[in-house]
Amino acid sequence: MTDRFDQLMATVLERRMSHPDTSYVARLTAKGRAKMAQKLGEEAVETVIAAMGDDREALIGESADLMFHLAVLLADADISFDDIRAELSRREGLSGLDEKAGRKS
Amino acid sequence: MTDRFDQLMATVLERRMSHPDTSYVARLTAKGRAKMAQKLGEEAVETVIAAMGDDREALIGESADLMFHLAVLLADADISFDDIRAELSRREGLSGLDEKAGRKS
Amino acid sequence: MTDRFDQLMATVLERRMSHPDTSYVARLTAKGRAKMAQKLGEEAVETVIAAMGDDREALIGESADLMFHLAVLLADADISFDDIRAELSRREGLSGLDEKAGRKS
Amino acid sequence: MTDRFDQLMATVLERRMSHPDTSYVARLTAKGRAKMAQKLGEEAVETVIAAMGDDREALIGESADLMFHLAVLLADADISFDDIRAELSRREGLSGLDEKAGRKS
Repeated sequence: MTDRFDQLMATVLERRMSHPDTSYVARLTAKGRAKMAQKLGEEAVETVIAAMGDDREALIGESADLMFHLAVLLADADISFDDIRAELSRREGLSGLDEKAGRKS
Repeated sequence: MTDRFDQLMATVLERRMSHPDTSYVARLTAKGRAKMAQKLGEEAVETVIAAMGDDREALIGESADLMFHLAVLLADADISFDDIRAELSRREGLSGLDEKAGRKS
Repeated sequence: MTDRFDQLMATVLERRMSHPDTSYVARLTAKGRAKMAQKLGEEAVETVIAAMGDDREALIGESADLMFHLAVLLADADISFDDIRAELSRREGLSGLDEKAGRKS
Repeated sequence: MTDRFDQLMATVLERRMSHPDTSYVARLTAKGRAKMAQKLGEEAVETVIAAMGDDREALIGESADLMFHLAVLLADADISFDDIRAELSRREGLSGLDEKAGRKS
């Protein structure tokens, strides 16, 4: 069974081919890389603000928005969530007992 | 088999219990919610900048950092990646033919 | 003669008293602190993206947006640009030969 | 008398010529545009978080950091605070009774 995040990516990849009039993903993609990056940044700001409040539902909602716009941005660079998973695994392999070793200082 | 993102979350939850001297996650968690939110915001800025360049590996690396710090923040609010997956599914159920309907305007 | 940034702040303070239907500042202020902070964050993301391109006019425009939304946020906390100027002077006084000393590490 | 923000810019311009070993500005400048943009983004995140708390002094401090890193970024693009002031004036001239008209929707 496909993971929900991969289903999200599959949906994004399909919607990129849709007409901008009928699809938000197609519309955002047509605006170019800078606009997709901007949306990711904006959703991160909203996630930060939700995290500072005490509203669990808001934080879940903003995190879903963040994952969605991360999928849109990664799709544009031909990167899959499996590429991110592989990078996380590579770091864990490197770090052994603590994740910090594999991260930049 | 557990998805890699859920393994990441399991690792984060375990590390939260570690001593701040030996674990980055424990150290960041000890600094409180605002610091965890700040780190998420900073990693998003780095992801935006990587996306503006043409370095695929850099974008993969920054996205992995973003997922890692999202896991740290969500763990602090007792939210799992399954909660995010459920929210994504709920939206798809609502939106039908286009994902936009379930998102805020 | 009043500095242009202080005139901006004076305009913001005046507009806060306007009706939300006729003023953007009044409308944003009515939405509360989190929304004002969000707008500042979003304008910073746009400034970052403009800085990564090579469009001088775009960077000037986004920086003006950033200053405008900083004024809106500071006004809400009863902070003036003179308070920021005083902080900058205080740091210079502390640092002597290099600005770094007065900044957090 | 020179405005404090212009003095800040003059200091930044002078420090750009310093040796990276002795000046934070020279060090950051040597790292390139992307790093300067990243720092602006990070300071904005900290300003957002300070604004969400109730610590007036923290918000003043983060806003000073934001102005400082905006100066570093603008200096790199050969933009002065007077260029930003001129843009703010141009918008006010365009908008007449409300600042919104001169801003992007």
